Formats: sequence, C-alpha cells, structure tokens
Amino acid sequence: MATKKTESDSKLKIIPLGGLEQIGMNMTAFEYEDSIIVVDCGLSFPDDDMLGIDLVIPDITYLRENADKVKAFFITHGHEDHIGAIPYVLKEINAPIYATKLTMGIIEGKLEEHELLKVVKRKIVKYGQAVTKGPFKVEFIKTNHSIADAAAFAITTPVGIVVHTGDFKVDYTPVFGDAIDLARFAELGKKGVLALICDSTNALRQGFTPSERKVGKTFDHIFAEHTKTRIIIATFASNVDRVQQIINSADKYGRKVIVEGRSMVNIINKAAELEYLKIPENTLISIDEMKNYTDEQLVLITTGSQGESMAALSRMAASIHRKVTIKPNDTVVFSSSPIPGNEKAVSKVINELSMKGAEVIFEDTHVSGHACQEEIKLIYALVKPKYAIPAHGEYRHLLVHGQLAESMGIAPENIFLLSSGDVLELDQEEAKVAGKVPSGSILVDGLGVGDVGNIVLRDRQNLAENGIIIVVLTLEKYTNRLLAGPDIVTRGFVYVRESETLIEDAKEIVSLALEDCLSNPTADWGKIKTIVKESLSESLWKRMRRNPMILPIIMEVD
Amino acid sequence: MATKKTESDSKLKIIPLGGLEQIGMNMTAFEYEDSIIVVDCGLSFPDDDMLGIDLVIPDITYLRENADKVKAFFITHGHEDHIGAIPYVLKEINAPIYATKLTMGIIEGKLEEHELLKVVKRKIVKYGQAVTKGPFKVEFIKTNHSIADAAAFAITTPVGIVVHTGDFKVDYTPVFGDAIDLARFAELGKKGVLALICDSTNALRQGFTPSERKVGKTFDHIFAEHTKTRIIIATFASNVDRVQQIINSADKYGRKVIVEGRSMVNIINKAAELEYLKIPENTLISIDEMKNYTDEQLVLITTGSQGESMAALSRMAASIHRKVTIKPNDTVVFSSSPIPGNEKAVSKVINELSMKGAEVIFEDTHVSGHACQEEIKLIYALVKPKYAIPAHGEYRHLLVHGQLAESMGIAPENIFLLSSGDVLELDQEEAKVAGKVPSGSILVDGLGVGDVGNIVLRDRQNLAENGIIIVVLTLEKYTNRLLAGPDIVTRGFVYVRESETLIEDAKEIVSLALEDCLSNPTADWGKIKTIVKESLSESLWKRMRRNPMILPIIMEVD
Repeated sequence: MATKKTESDSKLKIIPLGGLEQIGMNMTAFEYEDSIIVVDCGLSFPDDDMLGIDLVIPDITYLRENADKVKAFFITHGHEDHIGAIPYVLKEINAPIYATKLTMGIIEGKLEEHELLKVVKRKIVKYGQAVTKGPFKVEFIKTNHSIADAAAFAITTPVGIVVHTGDFKVDYTPVFGDAIDLARFAELGKKGVLALICDSTNALRQGFTPSERKVGKTFDHIFAEHTKTRIIIATFASNVDRVQQIINSADKYGRKVIVEGRSMVNIINKAAELEYLKIPENTLISIDEMKNYTDEQLVLITTGSQGESMAALSRMAASIHRKVTIKPNDTVVFSSSPIPGNEKAVSKVINELSMKGAEVIFEDTHVSGHACQEEIKLIYALVKPKYAIPAHGEYRHLLVHGQLAESMGIAPENIFLLSSGDVLELDQEEAKVAGKVPSGSILVDGLGVGDVGNIVLRDRQNLAENGIIIVVLTLEKYTNRLLAGPDIVTRGFVYVRESETLIEDAKEIVSLALEDCLSNPTADWGKIKTIVKESLSESLWKRMRRNPMILPIIMEVD
Repeated sequence: MATKKTESDSKLKIIPLGGLEQIGMNMTAFEYEDSIIVVDCGLSFPDDDMLGIDLVIPDITYLRENADKVKAFFITHGHEDHIGAIPYVLKEINAPIYATKLTMGIIEGKLEEHELLKVVKRKIVKYGQAVTKGPFKVEFIKTNHSIADAAAFAITTPVGIVVHTGDFKVDYTPVFGDAIDLARFAELGKKGVLALICDSTNALRQGFTPSERKVGKTFDHIFAEHTKTRIIIATFASNVDRVQQIINSADKYGRKVIVEGRSMVNIINKAAELEYLKIPENTLISIDEMKNYTDEQLVLITTGSQGESMAALSRMAASIHRKVTIKPNDTVVFSSSPIPGNEKAVSKVINELSMKGAEVIFEDTHVSGHACQEEIKLIYALVKPKYAIPAHGEYRHLLVHGQLAESMGIAPENIFLLSSGDVLELDQEEAKVAGKVPSGSILVDGLGVGDVGNIVLRDRQNLAENGIIIVVLTLEKYTNRLLAGPDIVTRGFVYVRESETLIEDAKEIVSLALEDCLSNPTADWGKIKTIVKESLSESLWKRMRRNPMILPIIMEVD
C-alpha cells in the first residue's frame, strides 16, 4: 500500500485496527504523514462460534505494509484486551513500547514468555511526562481503573490535541495512588482539544461508578460476620487494588493469605515486587502451609471468578483441585460480576459450591472499573472536544455514548462511531471517514497464528453439531474395481453399539449406489465421491433427520 | 423393578423425575401403593456442551417399569418445560392427560404433530374442579403466570394434601381472567396441608413481581411517543397476555397488527380460537398486506426476543428475513429479558438492529411470570405446609427458597431440596428421602431419541475443538505389505492451502513410524493404529501445540 503525497497527508488519521467497536482487541493507529504511533495492542477471547480457538488478535496488515512508519506503541494499562497481542505484533513490527511501571511489568512478563525481552525496546513513563515521536507528543495522564497504573493520553499532533481516555473511571478515593487527574483534563480543555476518544463500556448505565473502596468495606463486613469459617475470595487476577483490600481485611482480622491460581500468583508477585501491593510481613503463606492453620485463620484469594472451567475456584467446586477441598461452612465470595456470556458458567460454580454446603456471597462485592454516564459527561465537560469518538464498546454502547456526547453539546456531525479499519481523517476544519484499511481478526490456535480461518471453523461447527461419517474405498487402478470397502467409520454421530445395523445399512446403500459407476473404469473420483455423499446423506436425513459431515476417501492400488 | 409390599407402601412418595432441581424438564411423580400420577412432562433445551442436540427429555425408566401404575398426567400450564416431553413420554406410557383449556389446546398441537391425537385420552378441567385417580384427588386452582390458564394443584392423598404451585406469580390485575385464587390457598391452609411444592425461579429476588399490566402501560407510552415509525415488538410466543396488550395498544393507536414467526402464529391462532385473545376486527393483517400500509399504521409482533439465530427478529436484524427489512427509524421493542445464557445472542441482535438505524427499546418492557420472595412468603403464609419442597430452580435458588421457608416457620428438617430421582417418602409423622430411582436426561437429536450419549458428545467436543485427521492405509492381506497410503485427510484442523507441507510431513512421520511394524506380517491392526496415533499426535503437539482427533483406518486387500 504505497502512499502518494496528497492533501490528506497533512491531516491526522485515526484508524481503529483492533476495533473501537468491540470489547477486546483494543488497538488504534494515529498517522500523520510518514509517522504512525499505535495506542494499545490487545487481544480478544474467542466468541462461542470460534470453536477451538485460544485467542484472537488484530489483523495488522496495515501496520505491516507501513512498518517503516511505525514509531512506537503506547499502552494505556495492563489488561489483556490492551496488551495481549503485543508478543504477536512485536514479532513483526519492532517499535519501542511506552507504558507506566506496573503496565510495563506485566508486558515484560509476556515478552519473557515469548523470548522477546531482549528484542523489544521499552521505556517506563510517569504520569505528567510526555514522549515525542515524530510529529506526535504523547503525555501520560493519571486515571483510575480496575488495574493500577492506568493512563489516559493527551496526544499533541500538528492538527491539534487528541485525548484518549483508555479504560477509566473516576475514583475520588482510590485504594492505590491518586484520583484521576481531572485538573489536567480541564487544562487541556481550556487549551482546546480536537478530539476525544473515550471509554463506552458503561455508557448504558446511569449515574456514577462507586469507588473501589466500597468493596473494601464489604470485605470488612464479611470478615467481621464470618469469624468461624474459612474465607475464599475469587476475583480478577489483575485487580491489584482488590487484592490489596482483601489483604487489608485479612490483616485486620488476623488471617493468613494464600494466593491460588497461576495468573493470580504471577500478577501478585509482579505487583508486590514493583511495590503496587503492600503485604504486611508474615501475612502471605504458601498453599502447602495451609494445613498448619485452622479455617478461621485463613483466607484464600483465587482465580475463577468468571466460572472458567480450568481456573482454581472451578476446580475446587468440581472437587478436582489438588490442594483445596470445599467444606460445609466455607465462605466463598465472588468479587466480580459475570462478563456477558459467562453467566451460566458462574451459576454452575455457585451451584456446585452451594451443594458442598459453602455459603456463597456475590452481592455488593464488586464495582466496575469503567465510567458510567455521569463520569463520561464529566470528561466531556472538562475536555470540551470538537470531535467525539466513542470507543471500547459494542455498537449499542457507542451509540448511546454518541447520544451522551450530543447532549454535552458536540455537533452530531462531529460524532464518529467508527468501525475497525475506518480511516478517520481530521483537522481543525473538518473530519470525515475517508477510507478503509484491511482489519479484522486473526485466530490463534495453539502455536498456529492465522491458520484457522472460516472454512476450518465451518467444518468444526459442522463436526460439532453432527459428527462425521468416513467412507473408505480401495479401487484398482485403471479398472476402478472395488478391492476393499466401502468401510464406514463414524465419530460424534451415534453410539456405535446402537448403530451396527445403521452402519451395515449405510454400506449397503453406498455399495448399491456405486454399482453402476464403478463398472465404468473411467468414472472419475469426483463423481464417485459425489455419489457416496448424496446417497448416504439422503438416506440418513430420511431415517434420522440428521446431516453429518460425509467424507469419502478413495485409495488406489495397482 | 418389582415392588414388594412394605411399610413404605402406606406412605406417599414424591419423586422428581425431570429434576425439581433445574429449570426445564419439569416432571414429578406422586406414588401411593399401586397408583402413580405425574405432574407435568416437560423438556429442556440443551446446555452448551450438548453439541448438536435439539432437545432434552427426562429419563422415564421408572415410569416405564411401573407403567401399569401410571393413572394420569396432570399439566400445570402450556410452557415447553412443562409439556414438551409429552409426545415422547406418551408414546411409551399412555395415560390420560388433564389440563385447563388453553394448556390442552397447546398440547393438542403437539400431539397432532406427532400423530398421537387419536391415541391419547385427554380431558379439559376447569379451575375449582377436581379429578380423582385411584387414591389421588387433584384439584385445579387458578394462578397467574406468563401464559394464560396456569394452574396450581391441590393433591389430596391418603396421607394428606400436597399443594403444587406450578409456575406462578401473584397478579392482582391480570390481563386475562382472574387473579390467583389466594382464598383457596388459604382454605387449604386452614384444612391442613402436608407439603408445599413451590416455584423457586425468582427466589433470589426480593419484593414482588409487578403486574403484567405494567408492560401494557409501557406499550401505550411507546405507541404514544412513536407515532411516525413502524413498531416491531419481539416477545415470547406463548405470552398470550403480552400479545393481547400489544394488540390493545395497536387498536388504541390505530395500527394494524402483523404476526411473524411460526411459533408465534401457532400460539396466537390457538389462543384466538379458544377465545383467550380478543382481536378487534380488521386489526390483524397478513405480512403480505404490509405493503398496503405506511409505517405508522403498522406494528409487527415477532419471535426472536432471545436472539435465537433462526427466529424472525434475528433474521430481520441479519438482513436475511424474506419479507421484513429493518429501516432507519424503525422502533424495535424487546418485550422480554434474556434467559441466562442468551445475553450475548440478544446483544448481537441489538447491535445489528442499531447499526441499521433502528431505535431499540428494552427497558421496562417486560415483567417476570414468576413469584419473587414476598409472593413465595405469601403462599407459605396461606398454605402453612408441614413440609416444604422448593421446586423449579437451580440448586442455589432452591437453597434460598429453603431459607425463606425456614423464615416462614417451617422446621429445617422438614425442608427438602430434592435432586432428580430422589424418592421422598412422607406421611403425617415423618418425611425422608428413602431411595433413588433411575432418572436423568435423554438427548434428542433429529429423530434419534437417546442414541447420542456421553461418548458421542465427547467426540463432538473433541472434533469441535481440534478437528480430525484421518490416516488411511491399504495393506495386503497376510503380508501387511503397504499397497496404498498413508493418505491423510483433515477436517476442521488447518486450512488446506496452508497445510500442504504439514500434510506431507505428517505422511512422512507416519510412514517412518510404521516401517518396522509393517515389515512384520503378523503385526496386529491395533498396534499399527496405536503407532499412527502416537507418532502423529506427538509431532503435532510439538510443532503446533494442537491435539486433533487422529483416526487411523486400515483397509485390507487380498
């Protein structure tokens, strides 16, 4: 995609590559003439219909084709949907990464796993500092979120300032560090802001998201009311402030803390090492030391708050955890709310825990990390952008965010609900979607990146729904004489013992259907395969109203 | 399962067969000496891990083995989870069905589809009437629910009265017919009730479920505020009262009504025919007449409120509906809330509709059909049972319902959270779970009932996640000389064009691994297959971290 020098080169281009339009895979390119900077580099988790897929990362064709322009990656915070694609993308496009300390700590863990630690340049940035890259100056602004060290960016460009909030909430009483730097947003607003890219996650929710400290109070109440039982608390591994509050309550009520679940252990170690977590001495014990304490002396912090089947809490609930057995009178707290799509999995774990006699608590034990309507409006009131670009939400969230922006005085024609790949060209005079670059999802399955596409997924779907019937024939070369078969093997179709007559009948049907065709030595394999498929498929539909994948395989022997 | 005459024969047995413990598949047997009556006969929809399954019905081994005892089926109301298994069960156990008029109308539709209308005896029962079957007298009591004509049962048995609420709410101002017959519940309470089997669906929700009429008011507001646009309202097909209220608003605001979606059309026809729905003349028009009217003269009532991919609204949203195209300024109302598990599907449809410019309304447009905590307590206050049997909920709902029962004065040892198959034996002196009968789920796939079991499901899961690699060899009989192959075919594994070298490498690996083995003319096929599987599986894991199903097939030629 060679670019000619045109009028549009003197405009700023904002290009959502991961999709401003969806939760997950956050990645936005800012392009001005021959420079590109990228904000965030996230992955997404597979939809239900992406069978067998482990991760989804953004299609970076556009960056690859403009690799020499890419000056840097700026990362707002350490959540997977903002950093998860870094190892995949940085393998192809090696530009330095800029982030705050904890965010960088988490990124480094990823780079290490992918053996990229020595390859990728990176620099820790403090709030209030700015990094200049070509025509861009990116200033880091303190915000609040469900992970410490989140930043918004004020990106000064030749055509004006763009403010990107990242994921944020307004927390006047955060657990760690300062409240969001509203004063800086106000200053920028006074100076004049060209465009605001702002979090839409909670755009459908009225009011204000409560402070993280509210959950701390609930923890204190729970600890005060459950002095005789073991307490197990499941939460998001990355919510360091939440973990801090559990540790605070544990300390106050004289309990030892055990951390369980690989991702939880990793993040807590990293956060403690970087001093984002204050753990009083002798509070943390290992899971093997658990036996030296009584129930009322213990609290476990664990992964699995989303009902993920392999996570620690789910394994405890299903009695397959190697070291923790749920007992009657255990107190289990879900410090989380189910992410859409996980409701049933969470219910399942709650049911299993309840059946083992545990008391399960899930009310008032979580607050969101994202801004509700009043907070979004506050940011508009301070920043007063000319253009509004709702980000980080499904279309319906962006839509309502757009309506909020309009209610805050943004002209309707200056509100842009972008889709992935849209090229928004803007300057002080005008803004418009001026084109589209390649974008989309690349599926990661095991070590394979992009080798599973629509055809494979459609096959998996079909196999999942209906199973497969394989029909094997061995034919004599030149004569098409049937030397062996048809043999029929099925998987995922019917239980074999029940299907013996079915298989015999199927062989008969295939043999009959092939009789004519095989008596013709020149009949081609395509035709033979079609006959196998059609005859079998028709008879199975008639008999069972089922439609398995039918796969004829022909072997040829001299 | 021959039964000896024992002491327990003079006790009443209550046996949840579908599972009191889950939503879906409601079916409870009441047994006394040589008589059994069955309350409800529902199906369930498959869980996410039941790949390819259409329906789930209860395992009726116990009824089958005691078929001569089964005197009748009593049905509380016409929802699928209470009537859906009737065609499957009645094929095996032919006993008469008793139900109210609309419920019977819906059941007859099902029987007709399965060509059982002439085979199955049935009788319509009015509220206040009672049916005597052996030692049981079953009285039908008026309740309210999200479908008209719902009934509770007062079952008089030799050991006392059991009240079964069915699914209910308390609606003092129902749209059709009377409010729940609280007076009758009170009378029974005064007489003395042995046991109460009561709906737990909303046991986690405080307060009172609002009246169905509340939604009617919202409809009026929506119609009043959207006089220029077409209105499309999606709701549950069986919610006849909801449909009535849409028709009322349409009539009031001078709109014609179109009904779209097969199940919706079926139920509305049945309800109108039985006079459960009052449709003013010239209100209903066919979808083909739509073109004769302007947008502001129309309202469509449609299926698809749960985001079901094949339902009418989902097809409209995806632009694959043959007769309705969503336009900017259409007003689309979801008169429903997502059933757990359907949240993402509903969001998807809302996003698609929003992207087409439709306004989507989903707030205050639905009320539940199930009792909240205060209503459950009201029933306990009136009925004053000795024993409480929470029904119709996941374990966590039953648990909280049990706590409510305890708060209403039921002794903890008299509260029974039953599982499917539990045999609760009870009389005035005592109640205890005295055994377990076979129970569980039978999977229906196409016309196959029970021919898909755990092995098939596990194969489908494996195929879905990883795809399949088929390795075919043709060997010479007696010598094991390789005549053709190994040929390798994959489905759902990797996109073929990308995998050519992979397949070539795989052939090489298999050939090499087999070399020794095939030089031995007596090597058995089991061993050959194991070598194929192990060699390939190991190399694929190393190379790709994937674990496809590997299926070796050996053909033999003389």
